[in-house]
Amino acid sequence: MNAYLFEFIGTAMLILLGNGVVANVLLKETKGSDDGWVGITLAWGIAVFTGVFIAADVSGAHLNPAVTLGLAAAGKFSYNLVAGYMLAQILGAMAGTTLVWLAYKKQYDATTDKAALLATFATGPAIRSPFWNFITEMIGTFALVFGVMYIAGGTLGDQPVKLGSLDALPVALLVIGIGLSLGGPTGYAINPARDLGPRIMHALLPLKGKGGSDWGYALIPILGPFVGGLLAAFAFLAIGY
Amino acid sequence: MNAYLFEFIGTAMLILLGNGVVANVLLKETKGSDDGWVGITLAWGIAVFTGVFIAADVSGAHLNPAVTLGLAAAGKFSYNLVAGYMLAQILGAMAGTTLVWLAYKKQYDATTDKAALLATFATGPAIRSPFWNFITEMIGTFALVFGVMYIAGGTLGDQPVKLGSLDALPVALLVIGIGLSLGGPTGYAINPARDLGPRIMHALLPLKGKGGSDWGYALIPILGPFVGGLLAAFAFLAIGY
Amino acid sequence: MNAYLFEFIGTAMLILLGNGVVANVLLKETKGSDDGWVGITLAWGIAVFTGVFIAADVSGAHLNPAVTLGLAAAGKFSYNLVAGYMLAQILGAMAGTTLVWLAYKKQYDATTDKAALLATFATGPAIRSPFWNFITEMIGTFALVFGVMYIAGGTLGDQPVKLGSLDALPVALLVIGIGLSLGGPTGYAINPARDLGPRIMHALLPLKGKGGSDWGYALIPILGPFVGGLLAAFAFLAIGY
Amino acid sequence: MNAYLFEFIGTAMLILLGNGVVANVLLKETKGSDDGWVGITLAWGIAVFTGVFIAADVSGAHLNPAVTLGLAAAGKFSYNLVAGYMLAQILGAMAGTTLVWLAYKKQYDATTDKAALLATFATGPAIRSPFWNFITEMIGTFALVFGVMYIAGGTLGDQPVKLGSLDALPVALLVIGIGLSLGGPTGYAINPARDLGPRIMHALLPLKGKGGSDWGYALIPILGPFVGGLLAAFAFLAIGY
Repeated sequence: MNAYLFEFIGTAMLILLGNGVVANVLLKETKGSDDGWVGITLAWGIAVFTGVFIAADVSGAHLNPAVTLGLAAAGKFSYNLVAGYMLAQILGAMAGTTLVWLAYKKQYDATTDKAALLATFATGPAIRSPFWNFITEMIGTFALVFGVMYIAGGTLGDQPVKLGSLDALPVALLVIGIGLSLGGPTGYAINPARDLGPRIMHALLPLKGKGGSDWGYALIPILGPFVGGLLAAFAFLAIGY
Repeated sequence: MNAYLFEFIGTAMLILLGNGVVANVLLKETKGSDDGWVGITLAWGIAVFTGVFIAADVSGAHLNPAVTLGLAAAGKFSYNLVAGYMLAQILGAMAGTTLVWLAYKKQYDATTDKAALLATFATGPAIRSPFWNFITEMIGTFALVFGVMYIAGGTLGDQPVKLGSLDALPVALLVIGIGLSLGGPTGYAINPARDLGPRIMHALLPLKGKGGSDWGYALIPILGPFVGGLLAAFAFLAIGY
Repeated sequence: MNAYLFEFIGTAMLILLGNGVVANVLLKETKGSDDGWVGITLAWGIAVFTGVFIAADVSGAHLNPAVTLGLAAAGKFSYNLVAGYMLAQILGAMAGTTLVWLAYKKQYDATTDKAALLATFATGPAIRSPFWNFITEMIGTFALVFGVMYIAGGTLGDQPVKLGSLDALPVALLVIGIGLSLGGPTGYAINPARDLGPRIMHALLPLKGKGGSDWGYALIPILGPFVGGLLAAFAFLAIGY
Repeated sequence: MNAYLFEFIGTAMLILLGNGVVANVLLKETKGSDDGWVGITLAWGIAVFTGVFIAADVSGAHLNPAVTLGLAAAGKFSYNLVAGYMLAQILGAMAGTTLVWLAYKKQYDATTDKAALLATFATGPAIRSPFWNFITEMIGTFALVFGVMYIAGGTLGDQPVKLGSLDALPVALLVIGIGLSLGGPTGYAINPARDLGPRIMHALLPLKGKGGSDWGYALIPILGPFVGGLLAAFAFLAIGY
């Protein structure tokens, strides 16, 4: 139970600090509108750092269903816990984005751009193309989960692959790098919960003048990360460590 | 006594490097006017790093009355020391901002924008709304104090929760993240001393052409952080560690 | 064999995250077009961090023929392995840049600027001058390999000079510094594989509307780094440690 | 002798990576002209990191006459070595800036702005005022040397205060913070060798179309740092540790 709770808390912190920076950049009347992509990717990296730091020693800090699935496929995590972890992650993402909405309530009220409002919740592609958007999310998540395998101790032999709080900084740097380098085409969901949870809240919350929640795109940032995470797990097993 | 002294010194370093970057960005005739929000939040993070590094091993490096109150409420800090710590923090903030004024004396003389002059001392909201500004400061400080609880050792059991110099980097990263992500609506005081001490000095120092010190807003960056810190302490106790 | 495999994987990760940021900045219709030189250099540093972290404990994480040659010249790496390491590095760079092309496929299709297309693969000078471009690459690589010698343990006496995963962060910081400070004239290849492998792929891949691969420049980012790496090795031996 | 050699090498690396970024930003026809103050201060921080990392275990990595004088005044460094350290630092700074000139030779040839040419060597004030420029340099160097005292181990009791390679990161962060926060009025020399050595080379090197070396300002970035370093030493002794 405690592991589920810390997956919830860690993912809530991840999305609070992650979607917070998008709100700071895209909503009207904020102090951080000049952050740019560097500011956005730095903040998402620190969001990962904070969530991993808090949750690692209790739950292993997956905070991401693609990480959970990849670790299970690599034989490093019990399948019995997969569904509970994923549910906790999605609920945590919903809670975190709700806190962003409360912190930026006046700014949400002042913003009328439908695309900007949605972008503070869920990701969207720069050029819409289901196949290539899927490929981009798959490659980005492959880089994440493959890196996490080695950061979590894969090179040291047979021991379990599990993140600890000392791994928070390397994982955060990797996420900053993926954002700067592979985030250009789709905004790097690389995490099904990071996209789905806030997209649900976009549909539920009483945002003035909001448009649709773009459910037509919602499968891509779920499938791409899952396939990328599985490929990373298989590559990790094939390469050895 | 020594703990009070190091709270004073650490908070002075925090505000010297913190308000220094705001002066660099907002005053006339400086070299850092293009820093932007990323530069401001990086510098505040490093300001926290420096203050925590210097003070941690002596005083635990609270440097923030909301941290002091939260730790006391969580049973991790003696109530007998609370008033002394807070006084030292406010005096330190007053000293630090005075050093900024001396370092930027010619720039202060060259600047006539009343809002810019005040912003190099105290925080102010992008959209004025006492209730929502309070909520924003409360959420930001909750993230800070809740994170500090775990960084300071909460996950390892019954030991005292106390920052050491090795905790300076994680805390600094967390503060950078809060600035980038949650600083947009109010400029993230998240620390009553950081706002009140410099606001007093804005009123006292002989700044040419300064306007009022916006005392009407002064309670928000005190109450929001205190309530956020208390909620973080209660959450920490409820969740366990 | 395993060392060769990890040189391949590490260099592929290096180029995936490295050339990825250039694609994000220079191609049309991306989210990171405002990254600027700071974003580019941060991402290349994290690319080095990730590649070194994954490969270090198996292969020593050279990921760069100039590092391999320098270590061999300093008597710290077997000449028997040099050719295999270099081949693995070039093949890894070819694989990594191909992944960038797949991740940014729609953006490559949307971009018609021949210089931008080439720049997402290989380096080029701001002012073309074979001699001075050579000097710049030589000085940049000298700084890299000389720094790596000490980061890898040179100051502690007779032990082998070999990067471990704990060295990933110092090396990454050094590469960020070289990019910010010495990358201005030539775009800092400072690594023959980083330039040659992707240049080969620029010639091979079916990019719409691409121009020539600028083979006339291709020798400079090979010779400059090799000479710089050798000078660093000799300096290291002469100075002692 | 070895300590002098490593002070020379460390300071040369410091100025190579430090003045390199200024050249990248201010000279014509470079790739980093959009770095801004954030890029400049990051690169100077990494320059400090690299120099400290290489020199720390041999010479203690002062790399700065104000640090040398401050440590001697605090009783933590032998006065017999002070002159040799300072000479090595100035010579190292001259060597490092010469390497910058070689790396950017074509860019120096393409640049005609006299102020920009000088700024790639030595510091200058945003508003010229000998007294207040002195105060700014004094405060910035106080923050540096006072911080270095504690980073180098002052809080742990009677042991010698000496930087090791593990101290490279905290010192680098402190220098980034000083640059972002206190660099606005004078460009933060905070190091007499950093300013004097390159200023001498500006006078000696055959730069096309260069103007004067602004010797009228040269004393400020020597005196300010020396006084700031001494005050930090006295403060450190008075406060105890």
